Amino acid sequence: MNYNEEALKMHEEHKGKIEVISKVRVQNRDDLSTAYTPGVAEPCRKIHENKDDVYKYTAKGNLVAVLTDGSAVLGLGNIGAEAALPVMEGKAVLFKNFANVDAFPICVASQDTEEIINTAKNIAPVFGGINLEDIQAPKCFEIEKRLRELLDIPVFHDDQHGTAVVVCAALINALKLTKKSIGDIKVVLNGPGAAGTAIIKMMISLGVNNIVACDSKGIVVEGREAQLSQYKIELAQITNKEKLNGSLKDAIVGADVFIGTSAPNSVTEEMIKSMNKDSIIFAMANPIPEIMPDLAKKAGAKVIGTGRSDFPNQINNVLAFPGIFRGALDARAKKITEEMKKAAAYAIAGLVSDEELSENYIIPGPFDNRVVEAVSKAVQKAAALL
Amino acid sequence: MNYNEEALKMHEEHKGKIEVISKVRVQNRDDLSTAYTPGVAEPCRKIHENKDDVYKYTAKGNLVAVLTDGSAVLGLGNIGAEAALPVMEGKAVLFKNFANVDAFPICVASQDTEEIINTAKNIAPVFGGINLEDIQAPKCFEIEKRLRELLDIPVFHDDQHGTAVVVCAALINALKLTKKSIGDIKVVLNGPGAAGTAIIKMMISLGVNNIVACDSKGIVVEGREAQLSQYKIELAQITNKEKLNGSLKDAIVGADVFIGTSAPNSVTEEMIKSMNKDSIIFAMANPIPEIMPDLAKKAGAKVIGTGRSDFPNQINNVLAFPGIFRGALDARAKKITEEMKKAAAYAIAGLVSDEELSENYIIPGPFDNRVVEAVSKAVQKAAALL
Repeated sequence: MNYNEEALKMHEEHKGKIEVISKVRVQNRDDLSTAYTPGVAEPCRKIHENKDDVYKYTAKGNLVAVLTDGSAVLGLGNIGAEAALPVMEGKAVLFKNFANVDAFPICVASQDTEEIINTAKNIAPVFGGINLEDIQAPKCFEIEKRLRELLDIPVFHDDQHGTAVVVCAALINALKLTKKSIGDIKVVLNGPGAAGTAIIKMMISLGVNNIVACDSKGIVVEGREAQLSQYKIELAQITNKEKLNGSLKDAIVGADVFIGTSAPNSVTEEMIKSMNKDSIIFAMANPIPEIMPDLAKKAGAKVIGTGRSDFPNQINNVLAFPGIFRGALDARAKKITEEMKKAAAYAIAGLVSDEELSENYIIPGPFDNRVVEAVSKAVQKAAALL
Repeated sequence: MNYNEEALKMHEEHKGKIEVISKVRVQNRDDLSTAYTPGVAEPCRKIHENKDDVYKYTAKGNLVAVLTDGSAVLGLGNIGAEAALPVMEGKAVLFKNFANVDAFPICVASQDTEEIINTAKNIAPVFGGINLEDIQAPKCFEIEKRLRELLDIPVFHDDQHGTAVVVCAALINALKLTKKSIGDIKVVLNGPGAAGTAIIKMMISLGVNNIVACDSKGIVVEGREAQLSQYKIELAQITNKEKLNGSLKDAIVGADVFIGTSAPNSVTEEMIKSMNKDSIIFAMANPIPEIMPDLAKKAGAKVIGTGRSDFPNQINNVLAFPGIFRGALDARAKKITEEMKKAAAYAIAGLVSDEELSENYIIPGPFDNRVVEAVSKAVQKAAALL
């Protein structure tokens, strides 16, 4: 199947993928007087008296903004607001199809951090949550942090945390399969951008002690020749306790886990061979992974996951974000916390039974319809404990 | 029917009135690969190459933002963004029900003119048009003017121009019925806010030569005792050629038409009696008009219109905005021009045949299903002549 051609045809035929419909009929004067004036004044008055009633009388409570500036769209890079719209509509379609969350694309016509923050803040009254999408690192970190402080609705950068939740779910089960303890493993992560950084932070909060991050200049360590940006200085402070220096090739020696959020074919068979026994490889560069699964296998890797649907163990965000928002909205959570994300990761991992668990099945597939319910319930429960 | 109670029940039962649905199914990997990655990259690339393709591959071309700051909502006043949401959802429902336009509420969390302009500008990439709603005068004038300059999609403040179009449609037919010539009549407008000012300007562009505006301090005229704000100074310059001074009572003597966008019961029988023969009264204060139709009739008025559905000749914006946006979107117009608004007014008026035209039937009812098509075609035609 030629997805490019099919996609063009489908997008043109339907004129996009989302539609805003009316939940009520307006066919006569009584309908008009109930859905609009004069009747509509009454819910307005109630909300004016008690702002919280906006969840009772409007669509806000089930509505998520999928917000981008188009600065880091898929593998296409900085293509801007308009060109990002098909992806944002696609995300909205996934929200609706997987979790019955109403989602609406907001493509901001500015790539300035303050403008993006301000726009998100200004449109927030209509939404029950904001899913940030495809915004460049490092500004995505600042934008998310500030919006979480400013707003009383969940703000969640899916490229970061959705990916982190699914990688951690896969890691939990891969460790179970290889009988390695999370506190003892050495993890090398290549490509600490938005997703990579969030994965590192979530692994730390799950108990991983030894993580080495590499970028295109080599191991991230303070004082190295290639200068570190501010956020990589912070990264160096929470990783690489042994202060290793050198290249990815140096870092990966003796590692138990390799996680790639980087570039196609950036990992060789030699590198895999230098890892510990029963190594775990999550090679998520898309569409061409850091190393192809067959090569990694031949070089001795035990468990391999990629971003692709045509190999086993697909690391797909769709396992996480629909259920996470479903749960957060149902709980009327004001934030999506570390505990809620962890609960989501364990819920996803928990759907693979000990009997089913194998090298080729460490996480559920994207169309496993138990996932959304399991994740949303776990997230709701974690939210209730706040 | 108690509309307040019905409205509360309906709004709570449905959790608001709008829903964002998916026009495509995502039930298997092929669907996912077409609606989302990897296929979605292809329409993104096309739009990146040619921005205009956003109309071909996304929902933008049929999508209108219903944007407010909640500063002048119905008769409720400045109730803020959240409390305004039921009205904006209601407007979206009317757009969809009457003209199959997808509309989405944007309630801005700021009442600052620059912030509102900036937010509208920043969200514009997703929308094919912006309907401004329930924003206080005079800032609504500045906001609309600036956005029309900034954006290449139609920006239309319905409280102003929707109302003006319907009033002018009613006026065209009322003059036909009373056999008065538009160039000869004297019109008194009471309450020159957002709607009143737009009505005045549109009447001038239709050929009315003699208009006197009154506000709560009396006739709007330069040099009067009660100071004029900047926009009323401008209003004084285009109205009241005879430089009349005094009160509404003074202004209305010898008038052919009274238009009220003001306060309940602000017009007396005496005032109606002082008007010319075959006077025309559009008393649109809601829910209680400037004068009740039976009293106006008794005092000698020939044609009476109000904002209410329980009297004849309802002046209802729903006759205008759905068809105007339908036409503007279909024509891919960059602006809604004076000519397009005039075309809409004549199209609405034209649906009442000479045989049907009577004191109690000068404009079609809101559920006359010929209206949207007639208006949208006329608007498209006017847009094509630009």
